[in-house]
Amino acid sequence: VAGRAGSVFLLTDYGLADEFAGVVRASVSRHAPGVPIIDLTHGVTPFDVRAGALGLVRAVPYLGPGVVLAVVDPGVGTARRAVAVSVTPDPGSEGPRHFVGPDNGLLPWAVDAVGAVRRAVTLPRPSDDAAGATFDGRDVFAPAAARLWRGEDVAELGDDLDPDCLVRLAPPRTTSSPGTLETEVLWVDRFGNVQLAARPDDATAAALGVDLKVVTAATGVSRRAARVTAFAALGPGALGLIVDANRHLALVCDRRSAATVLEVHPGDLVTLRSVVPGPGSP
Amino acid sequence: VAGRAGSVFLLTDYGLADEFAGVVRASVSRHAPGVPIIDLTHGVTPFDVRAGALGLVRAVPYLGPGVVLAVVDPGVGTARRAVAVSVTPDPGSEGPRHFVGPDNGLLPWAVDAVGAVRRAVTLPRPSDDAAGATFDGRDVFAPAAARLWRGEDVAELGDDLDPDCLVRLAPPRTTSSPGTLETEVLWVDRFGNVQLAARPDDATAAALGVDLKVVTAATGVSRRAARVTAFAALGPGALGLIVDANRHLALVCDRRSAATVLEVHPGDLVTLRSVVPGPGSP
Amino acid sequence: VAGRAGSVFLLTDYGLADEFAGVVRASVSRHAPGVPIIDLTHGVTPFDVRAGALGLVRAVPYLGPGVVLAVVDPGVGTARRAVAVSVTPDPGSEGPRHFVGPDNGLLPWAVDAVGAVRRAVTLPRPSDDAAGATFDGRDVFAPAAARLWRGEDVAELGDDLDPDCLVRLAPPRTTSSPGTLETEVLWVDRFGNVQLAARPDDATAAALGVDLKVVTAATGVSRRAARVTAFAALGPGALGLIVDANRHLALVCDRRSAATVLEVHPGDLVTLRSVVPGPGSP
Repeated sequence: VAGRAGSVFLLTDYGLADEFAGVVRASVSRHAPGVPIIDLTHGVTPFDVRAGALGLVRAVPYLGPGVVLAVVDPGVGTARRAVAVSVTPDPGSEGPRHFVGPDNGLLPWAVDAVGAVRRAVTLPRPSDDAAGATFDGRDVFAPAAARLWRGEDVAELGDDLDPDCLVRLAPPRTTSSPGTLETEVLWVDRFGNVQLAARPDDATAAALGVDLKVVTAATGVSRRAARVTAFAALGPGALGLIVDANRHLALVCDRRSAATVLEVHPGDLVTLRSVVPGPGSP
Repeated sequence: VAGRAGSVFLLTDYGLADEFAGVVRASVSRHAPGVPIIDLTHGVTPFDVRAGALGLVRAVPYLGPGVVLAVVDPGVGTARRAVAVSVTPDPGSEGPRHFVGPDNGLLPWAVDAVGAVRRAVTLPRPSDDAAGATFDGRDVFAPAAARLWRGEDVAELGDDLDPDCLVRLAPPRTTSSPGTLETEVLWVDRFGNVQLAARPDDATAAALGVDLKVVTAATGVSRRAARVTAFAALGPGALGLIVDANRHLALVCDRRSAATVLEVHPGDLVTLRSVVPGPGSP
Repeated sequence: VAGRAGSVFLLTDYGLADEFAGVVRASVSRHAPGVPIIDLTHGVTPFDVRAGALGLVRAVPYLGPGVVLAVVDPGVGTARRAVAVSVTPDPGSEGPRHFVGPDNGLLPWAVDAVGAVRRAVTLPRPSDDAAGATFDGRDVFAPAAARLWRGEDVAELGDDLDPDCLVRLAPPRTTSSPGTLETEVLWVDRFGNVQLAARPDDATAAALGVDLKVVTAATGVSRRAARVTAFAALGPGALGLIVDANRHLALVCDRRSAATVLEVHPGDLVTLRSVVPGPGSP
């Protein structure tokens, strides 16, 4: 039975210091004995729905079949919906077929990466209101994910919801003009690499050169950078622009934090500008 | 076989930076191939037995069948006992039937939450004293948990121990008088929510009003708070008293740390006092 | 099938804040449905190959059968090789038979602890270079580990590599003279315990006494220490030398960080010197 319907994949902002993630794992396992549970991460910045959605969309092409249970939920306890979404996968896609979480923009990008919404439902609130505040990961999302993993149809889990009504986040920003790319910082990873919203096609469209000036909008920090294909092509402290493993452009240093060098954070805008060598330059 | 006897649930203060937790996982798995292992948390504050016991008792109603392996063990290497406890579950309880860990108060509250002690034993020390200090999680508790999961009776694991001799921690403190509740901070979670020892019945007994003054004993910090049913009912920065998902009273802010506002830590006493509007108040 | 070939054990410097570790778990699981995945740790200091190798060699005697997938890889994207190594186990060894990771010294000590290299191969780069930088944990090491777990022979995974060509790290340093031991700090754990390269035999060879002076080479900090058999034998703040659970000498305090007291870090040299009581001493 294990593996029959794939795994349940968890992504939350619960952290690992408390027992929140552990209780959700146990709740999934209790409702679906034998289920393989795979933690994607519980380290999303608290309440940062956008960061959770971006992490999920980076991960989802590599997950294989199963159910995604994602919780970054600043609106817990409000009227925001809890939802389950089943997907008609794109041809050849082997990704997860089901997504469970709050209806706050956390899920749709990942759904898009796998296929199209087949059916979406609103998950009902637990009936026992006397119990006080609910822990939706434990009480709502884990049981729903377990039922989907066991093969129940999403229609059995709640009332139908128009997929067009699912809350969506504003798409990442990238604008280009000849020699210039203005783009949003999507992610600063553990190593200080700075993933940008822009992709290689954007660099091509902007006819971006090999030698660049990078300016951080928020702080005005300005640095030179070179387009490279590997970290090791960079000298000590030098800044490079690479195509990263998610096929985004990224600003990086070799064994050093590019985010620290640039003083950037997720959500910041940076400008990449081709440096035109002046007369007399080498 | 997997799931036959449930899971092995881990709760420790080992952290995740070192390989301690990983070696315990591997040791359980080696002695019980196929066992589902569920990390509750490894993030208990080092040596904080009380915090570990409180986290375990919050989690245990949601775990399903299996064996709890818990280690927060400032007395490792001393004469403190290592114990295994099997439980006669309360009617209808589907929780874990076995608990393994140090005899320092870490386990009994969780045992109480599931049922009554059926049998308790002292686990013997590993015989190979030449090996130096033992890593009891790896060498004592993991093999014992694996044997219980595989179906061995607890009586085979060591010598009988009078359950009344198990070390117990002092119970959390709450005292009430008309309009006033003095209660211990049990837990500050990742989001800064402040779980109190007091429960809704204590608030009822104290006839606590909707408008409250909260005073932190240690620092004298004083703040107004309102009893609410959801985080989102609170304005920016406002402090609220809710019934949390463990049916305790908790002091919270909306998307902000109530613990920071109140300058409180686990173990601190706080006083909640009804505010009686004076004449002329709105 | 689960457990047939043991588990896949993960050790990386990916941390748990990002989804890196989760994507590797998913990638292993997708290529080997039903595989038990055991995280040893993802908390190795970024790029610290030596710390990763030391953690792995501490863990490997306790793992049981399976495949080790280890990634601490400052040279990702350079010409450094990706390798898979299969082992002829020492008689009686039940440890992992296969190791996958970068060829930078991370694996050989752990291989040595299990047996001798039976066959080593170089793992090919993913062919799709258009994809940009690779995430070798996801794209190279996880699929290789999964194939080995499923029972494929290592020879099918890549071209043969002379085992003598595997990169090896400099061995930990310990030198002794009568009454003196100079030795490297290998590890400072979560509790501040300071594991040394020296082992009990080294102390015997140096005829080290019970009363010691400990000097940290880098800072000149000097402290008295006593050889003890348990943490609890130490008074508040007192420093002790024990044989730890990995059979190394270690400097420890009772419920306090010895590393803070000594101001030491991994890689530092410390000198342990027998204190000869002068005339008139008790």
